[in-house]
Amino acid sequence: MVENNHSTDESGEFKRSLSHFDDRITSDGSSAWPVEPGRYRLVVSKACPWASRMLVVRRLLGLEDALSVGVTDPIQDEKSWRFTLDPGDIDPVLGIHYIAEAYHKREPDYDGGISVPAIVDIPSGELVTNDYLQMTLDLSTQWKRYHRKGAPDLYPEDLRPEMDAVIDRIFRQFNNGVYRAGFATSQVKYDRAYTDVFECLDWLEERLTGQRFLMGDTITEADIRLFATLVRFDPVYHGHFKCNRNKITEMPALWGYTRDLYQTPGFTDTVDFDHIKRHYYVVHSDINPTGIVPDGPDLSVFATAHGRERLGGRPFGDGTPPSAR
Amino acid sequence: MVENNHSTDESGEFKRSLSHFDDRITSDGSSAWPVEPGRYRLVVSKACPWASRMLVVRRLLGLEDALSVGVTDPIQDEKSWRFTLDPGDIDPVLGIHYIAEAYHKREPDYDGGISVPAIVDIPSGELVTNDYLQMTLDLSTQWKRYHRKGAPDLYPEDLRPEMDAVIDRIFRQFNNGVYRAGFATSQVKYDRAYTDVFECLDWLEERLTGQRFLMGDTITEADIRLFATLVRFDPVYHGHFKCNRNKITEMPALWGYTRDLYQTPGFTDTVDFDHIKRHYYVVHSDINPTGIVPDGPDLSVFATAHGRERLGGRPFGDGTPPSAR
Repeated sequence: MVENNHSTDESGEFKRSLSHFDDRITSDGSSAWPVEPGRYRLVVSKACPWASRMLVVRRLLGLEDALSVGVTDPIQDEKSWRFTLDPGDIDPVLGIHYIAEAYHKREPDYDGGISVPAIVDIPSGELVTNDYLQMTLDLSTQWKRYHRKGAPDLYPEDLRPEMDAVIDRIFRQFNNGVYRAGFATSQVKYDRAYTDVFECLDWLEERLTGQRFLMGDTITEADIRLFATLVRFDPVYHGHFKCNRNKITEMPALWGYTRDLYQTPGFTDTVDFDHIKRHYYVVHSDINPTGIVPDGPDLSVFATAHGRERLGGRPFGDGTPPSAR
Repeated sequence: MVENNHSTDESGEFKRSLSHFDDRITSDGSSAWPVEPGRYRLVVSKACPWASRMLVVRRLLGLEDALSVGVTDPIQDEKSWRFTLDPGDIDPVLGIHYIAEAYHKREPDYDGGISVPAIVDIPSGELVTNDYLQMTLDLSTQWKRYHRKGAPDLYPEDLRPEMDAVIDRIFRQFNNGVYRAGFATSQVKYDRAYTDVFECLDWLEERLTGQRFLMGDTITEADIRLFATLVRFDPVYHGHFKCNRNKITEMPALWGYTRDLYQTPGFTDTVDFDHIKRHYYVVHSDINPTGIVPDGPDLSVFATAHGRERLGGRPFGDGTPPSAR
């Protein structure tokens, strides 16, 4: 979920909005939106960490044919996310210029935030959900019938209690912590967010020193949630959001882990550093009024050897990697 | 020289002003201002790299008694540098609230930039010079009679042709390059400045790999010019001015060199990271509108072992270090 679905309150603290549209697409008829291949379109920005999580999960589970994707321009205009990367500035499937049109098709009077990732019902053109926290989980649990052969189990039942706690801590202190640091307008609120971010990173550094992935030997939803923030950290959050105690490259376990995932099929091809950097530095004119996009850091280091194989592990568990792209 | 003595022009390029007041204090009667211990007051901000160079040279040469110092608040207000660190907000020697008063005593109609370092004639209260490029050299060449016993020769005659070229390149590409990067309002101008900065750092890294100081075995004016920018690089220029290819800590020779000088008496006690960070992040509201001062990076690393002694060298040549403070 990336802007403009947030605000900084009077005390100077960043507040992330809850998703307004939290319908679920389900496999058991428990909602108005049944799982159906080809029926829905996922709209993302490759700049947005939440949207990127959807892209990774979709790739790892092999849902590319079941759920198509529209990619927006990394720079929103006053009408928010737009399809200017497509011919005629129109999404070829939805036939709209802005994702906001699907929001208004669903709720004509809606005047809240417009965010991605968003899932749209193609026949009606209506937005189904922008619930960034639920969406990835539902790809794992509701779309099972359409997973590729060899798809990993990213949300194994026996691990859920512990995983949910890990995911929650990472969300509060890190995924959202960097935003709370960057958008704070009070030094006290910034300081608290900064403390959270590095307390979380220190905890993760220790946890990942002895094991290859967050929950053990195998990639799970928790890793995907963490990765999308880690990969943006040195290029954006370290400078732009002032999370500058150190870079991820300075934390050996986390830096090895970040490269390990980055170099795994299904992750690599979802990361677009150009979209990421331009989005944050151009759109946040309240933080970066000049709109200058930094030329650094050197990104070639993401491709260097990470050495994490020595920890063993089975990245896809009983499954297999997705085909490379 | 720190603001507000600059501007960004229509093309988006930062322009550093020449000093308006370029009188020299001389030992041979060639100017209206004779060298005379106790007669002048040096006014600095510890945030400002140019003013800090004056503090280092003054310490290394032992001119503390001959030339007293007034230190301004790191945060200017609309009347520029002010003596709010002193009781009653008044410089105890000059009896003024703002350094601008000395500028106007000298030239009542002056409406140009107000900068530090500045030297004021105590009897008349008039500004003598704000010529940041000449001032340090004159402490070496004109104030010789008042140097301490064992003062080093920071500007040896036989080295001057090469040293002047080194100083000039460092000024254009690095000392001023970081400002050109930070204040650029056009991506093209920023890119050029960024290229300059790192081209210069790569050149310096190579030069300092085999020798301890810029001109060889001994500290000179060239090292002092370089140091003041290096010590500010990771805490400020890397993030705030977007010079973010890498930190100085990531360049082994330069990082060892920076710590070597930082840990040398006469350097250490002139560095005030609190003043440095608050100045840049609070004053430049055109770059950092929130005024939030980052909590990072970890500065304790400046005190770690640098290992440069293995290169040999005689830091003070035939002279001796100043007493520690």
